[in-house]
Amino acid sequence: MWTYKTPGIPDDLFLQSDNVPGPTKEEIRALTISKARLKEGFYVIDVGCGTGGLTIEAALQVGYKGRVFAIDEDDEAVKLTISNAEKFDAQDIVKVLKGKAPEALADLPMVDVVIIGGTKGLEEIIPVAYTKLKEHGRIVVNAILLETGFRALDAIKKAGFTEIDVTQINVAKGKNIDGGTMMLARNPITVISATKA
Amino acid sequence: MWTYKTPGIPDDLFLQSDNVPGPTKEEIRALTISKARLKEGFYVIDVGCGTGGLTIEAALQVGYKGRVFAIDEDDEAVKLTISNAEKFDAQDIVKVLKGKAPEALADLPMVDVVIIGGTKGLEEIIPVAYTKLKEHGRIVVNAILLETGFRALDAIKKAGFTEIDVTQINVAKGKNIDGGTMMLARNPITVISATKA
Amino acid sequence: MWTYKTPGIPDDLFLQSDNVPGPTKEEIRALTISKARLKEGFYVIDVGCGTGGLTIEAALQVGYKGRVFAIDEDDEAVKLTISNAEKFDAQDIVKVLKGKAPEALADLPMVDVVIIGGTKGLEEIIPVAYTKLKEHGRIVVNAILLETGFRALDAIKKAGFTEIDVTQINVAKGKNIDGGTMMLARNPITVISATKA
Amino acid sequence: MWTYKTPGIPDDLFLQSDNVPGPTKEEIRALTISKARLKEGFYVIDVGCGTGGLTIEAALQVGYKGRVFAIDEDDEAVKLTISNAEKFDAQDIVKVLKGKAPEALADLPMVDVVIIGGTKGLEEIIPVAYTKLKEHGRIVVNAILLETGFRALDAIKKAGFTEIDVTQINVAKGKNIDGGTMMLARNPITVISATKA
Repeated sequence: MWTYKTPGIPDDLFLQSDNVPGPTKEEIRALTISKARLKEGFYVIDVGCGTGGLTIEAALQVGYKGRVFAIDEDDEAVKLTISNAEKFDAQDIVKVLKGKAPEALADLPMVDVVIIGGTKGLEEIIPVAYTKLKEHGRIVVNAILLETGFRALDAIKKAGFTEIDVTQINVAKGKNIDGGTMMLARNPITVISATKA
Repeated sequence: MWTYKTPGIPDDLFLQSDNVPGPTKEEIRALTISKARLKEGFYVIDVGCGTGGLTIEAALQVGYKGRVFAIDEDDEAVKLTISNAEKFDAQDIVKVLKGKAPEALADLPMVDVVIIGGTKGLEEIIPVAYTKLKEHGRIVVNAILLETGFRALDAIKKAGFTEIDVTQINVAKGKNIDGGTMMLARNPITVISATKA
Repeated sequence: MWTYKTPGIPDDLFLQSDNVPGPTKEEIRALTISKARLKEGFYVIDVGCGTGGLTIEAALQVGYKGRVFAIDEDDEAVKLTISNAEKFDAQDIVKVLKGKAPEALADLPMVDVVIIGGTKGLEEIIPVAYTKLKEHGRIVVNAILLETGFRALDAIKKAGFTEIDVTQINVAKGKNIDGGTMMLARNPITVISATKA
Repeated sequence: MWTYKTPGIPDDLFLQSDNVPGPTKEEIRALTISKARLKEGFYVIDVGCGTGGLTIEAALQVGYKGRVFAIDEDDEAVKLTISNAEKFDAQDIVKVLKGKAPEALADLPMVDVVIIGGTKGLEEIIPVAYTKLKEHGRIVVNAILLETGFRALDAIKKAGFTEIDVTQINVAKGKNIDGGTMMLARNPITVISATKA
């Protein structure tokens, strides 16, 4: 299906649904996975998995000794992430949970990385994410709202994370049209990452 | 209609058509008019006027002693620009010509500024624009294709323009959604401006 | 000095100092003035004027019947703005006040537009700016910090402004180097503007 | 040194020199490696390796069964890339060659991926790169000049590559200052990637 080792699976390889957000665009997935700093065998939580784009990318990095716990409160997102896990042969690595964060994190084991793509409840989710992270564990938040960038950064500071990195990305993609290559902009994203000391 | 002196008329004040590109977004219009460096009484050519957004903005700056010659080869663009000129009470300033550049420039008088929004035939249009410009006249090209940026810059250099400025702009606009302000990207634009020595 | 009618005076025409921030880059000045929606005779307050870039641009738009009250708490910024007002022959339009906002706004008359370029105390300045604005008056805030964008938007909403616009701008400028045109990025700016209902 | 599996090594972990460009910033390295689509055992050529940032990232992905041939015509770049290869324990994977492309590619074996970071001679290098690539091999060009983006795309089309992707990236990084997080822009980059059919 996708035999390369590097993140950044083309968007159109994922099963998609009009009712489920995602997948996170391939360039942003590549960058998010980079900021997550993964190793084989790592345990990862993906909060608000949507289509499962980041879940699958993380799964391909951590491999069969690792686990990715994907959480979403939407039934269709849960099903879609499961389908994508199967499509990419990652069904033994990915565990999809229907539930609402931060409550849904309660029963999960300690993990190496928490990825948060969603926009709601960051103030509650980030402190709980901190408690679920092992020492030197990483958190990565993808913010698409002006307010989320601010709130995520504030919550990450208050939770006690260190090595905080704020990266705003504007991507434009070339599209072949009559006459040349039109540059089509993608919405800007703020990626905030940090380490549990 | 629009009684302010400063450029940047809100997009939705223009009459629009699905078949005609434009109007150039308000922020890009404001910047294009800035690079054009207009004065009352100036004569301006707008090549590829489309909806007439830049035509109207220029007209409001040059006033009744000035003229804006708007050129487009599309019938509907010609009609729409005329309608917008009437809507903004600029019909005595704006002269709309159906025609193809650079041929359509042949019968026009010498002008102070040439604005080029279109994407085709830049190599032919820019040298002719140079001959139509008075001394110290200005040219402003808005490029949305990767190739157009390169070709416009190359043609502007070859035509003998000086004080060449290349400005790439990425704009994102906030949209109120449930939960906050989503940043929606607009396509990047390269604005190339220069002066006839 | 600068005889054009349109905003966007080239940066290097301003007197500058290493100890005073600014001038706001020409493209951002053009856009800020566009969002301010100025008319001849308007009264304007520029909070945190720094070098005076926005002060001068506003002064050239409002003309001799208008006024621009430029405020800064730094002595050198006050002097530099006065010098730039003289350089651009706007000394009869510009009144520079040494002081701290929002206190320094207390004795000023009601105005048509408030421009805020500074980063500190937005929560206190914006509600006071609201009280100083005439009906249909405009506010424009330029934010360069992640937090300022959020706080300005929040304070503008709470103060009761309408027609709120959030515009993020990324500008890159071409620089001639051996081999071609290198694109040098300028720091992103969030421009938040709104109308007093 | 860097034990993570994912690309995007922090910039400051590389040995650097004022006389050698690079390293390519970590976010752009992560994206470049993503577009390169690497597997364990792959052979890679890095044309214009500079500091060796992309060389090391590629080496960590292809592992001991793979090879990265790093080429630069500058003595100090050659030395620096060797030093960085040693620092990241990749000296058995990386072979650094002093030389000028495309001539320096002549004696290299067929490879899976060619990465081109330099700005000169793209028209000559890209067709030779094509001949050095195995079937389904990938090319990735990072362009920082307006002209390079255009020329690389044109040369890639003419060489017969397929699945051509043009991605422009603007990154801004948060920096803690008094009062908040200032967003500092990095220069925009155009990443062009394609596959040999």
